[in-house]
Amino acid sequence: MNILVTLNSNYIKPLKVMLKSLFINNPKDTFTIYLIHSSLTDAEVSDIEAFITSHQSHFRPIKIDDSVFANAPTLFHYPKEMYYRLLAYKLLPQDIDRILYLDPDILVINPIKSLYNTDIDEYLFAAAYHNMVKGINRLRFMPYKIDTYYNSGVLLMNLKRHRQEIDEEEIYKFIENTPTMLLMPDQDILNVLFAKKIKNLDEKYYNYDVRYFHYYRITSNNIWDMDYVIKNTQILHFCGRKKPWRKDYRGKFHSLYKHYEKQALYP
Amino acid sequence: MNILVTLNSNYIKPLKVMLKSLFINNPKDTFTIYLIHSSLTDAEVSDIEAFITSHQSHFRPIKIDDSVFANAPTLFHYPKEMYYRLLAYKLLPQDIDRILYLDPDILVINPIKSLYNTDIDEYLFAAAYHNMVKGINRLRFMPYKIDTYYNSGVLLMNLKRHRQEIDEEEIYKFIENTPTMLLMPDQDILNVLFAKKIKNLDEKYYNYDVRYFHYYRITSNNIWDMDYVIKNTQILHFCGRKKPWRKDYRGKFHSLYKHYEKQALYP
Repeated sequence: MNILVTLNSNYIKPLKVMLKSLFINNPKDTFTIYLIHSSLTDAEVSDIEAFITSHQSHFRPIKIDDSVFANAPTLFHYPKEMYYRLLAYKLLPQDIDRILYLDPDILVINPIKSLYNTDIDEYLFAAAYHNMVKGINRLRFMPYKIDTYYNSGVLLMNLKRHRQEIDEEEIYKFIENTPTMLLMPDQDILNVLFAKKIKNLDEKYYNYDVRYFHYYRITSNNIWDMDYVIKNTQILHFCGRKKPWRKDYRGKFHSLYKHYEKQALYP
Repeated sequence: MNILVTLNSNYIKPLKVMLKSLFINNPKDTFTIYLIHSSLTDAEVSDIEAFITSHQSHFRPIKIDDSVFANAPTLFHYPKEMYYRLLAYKLLPQDIDRILYLDPDILVINPIKSLYNTDIDEYLFAAAYHNMVKGINRLRFMPYKIDTYYNSGVLLMNLKRHRQEIDEEEIYKFIENTPTMLLMPDQDILNVLFAKKIKNLDEKYYNYDVRYFHYYRITSNNIWDMDYVIKNTQILHFCGRKKPWRKDYRGKFHSLYKHYEKQALYP
């Protein structure tokens, strides 16, 4: 399976935890991890490489220099990193047709084969929209008549179709013409420009926002209790500002996160 | 390492979870699991045996019939099972000098070699006393001038010394003469009769009561946070009436328990 990650040096430890959970819970599969970055040092890339290859997976780092996205608007001080997900098809080898982007602030707690093999022939992406976030964003997106808010932290990409349909210039134009600062640039672009070409994934299986344990449980008539989550959810996503690798974190999945962190960083 | 467990059929699933966590986190060690019981069916014992041997460990079931402890008082309706821990030295092979008793409502989350090898040459047992429980029990134990309350859920036994020093009749006499019903019979006997012959273990490492996460953290100046627990605690103990395998459970280590439960029961 092809996995895409993009990060700076602040996220190396969480990346290892995420990858460790992926490897542990998908023991029969081999992975090729594509890392798109611009600021990691050679030593940092080597460190990540050693980690991945010691788990019998492959590593393909792709360093982006300033000549890439030279035309991209920087007017609003958006970092270029925001394009790595949306325009990954330009940066990845041209013979890859499918890749799964994963944020570093997640845990993979079950096999993800069924997610990876989701039929997206007719779509650009598959992603989960986060119901709880919808209300907050309804106002923000009113001008665009968007009523869903897809989370871009777990993003299955149909790269073949990206090459045919995604228009780099359209993205740049949208950014230049956008009336206000975008809150979460790449995620906002995903929602505004591509909402209709995204296959919807059930967030409880594929992009479980750990802040909403009670919401998921109550709205499912108690089906989604802890037992069910641990057995069925493929991806736990530690969304929001509070992160489980920080000292002040507390939350339902804190002990589980620390369990994987120990195995990844202090084996 | 020799491990002792005693249980009835209600605790077979938790036992497997406990053993799975023991095996996973002590991959370099082999174990011989002694099971003392009176009520398990042959099919249940075979099921436990298959589980243990599939993990490259050994299994020695010991079935107790009515002739054992024939002299033990039953006046106060104490089940005979209460003697299995205190008089294990009578029931186990005479060539074993050391064994670690473990309750089924625990998780072993780190290697336990250092616990197992604790120097107890001068003691009958090693156990942790639960500080938080002390206050509650001060009144109850006032007649006996006992000011500690050892938890009997994790109990390292010096069987060699047991054979020399433990007096079966003394235990029976104590029970017959005890003024009130004992709340937790074997644990109470341990505290009253043997308190001075117990080596004290730090509960935070060896018998961490999961209900008191905040208490441990605050009283240690924040050293014992989740990170430290996951890295350093050897045994988490799910004390009290609320058990992590029940539907209504909630607690700091719920997700971690379910993680091990999944691996033990639904691999």
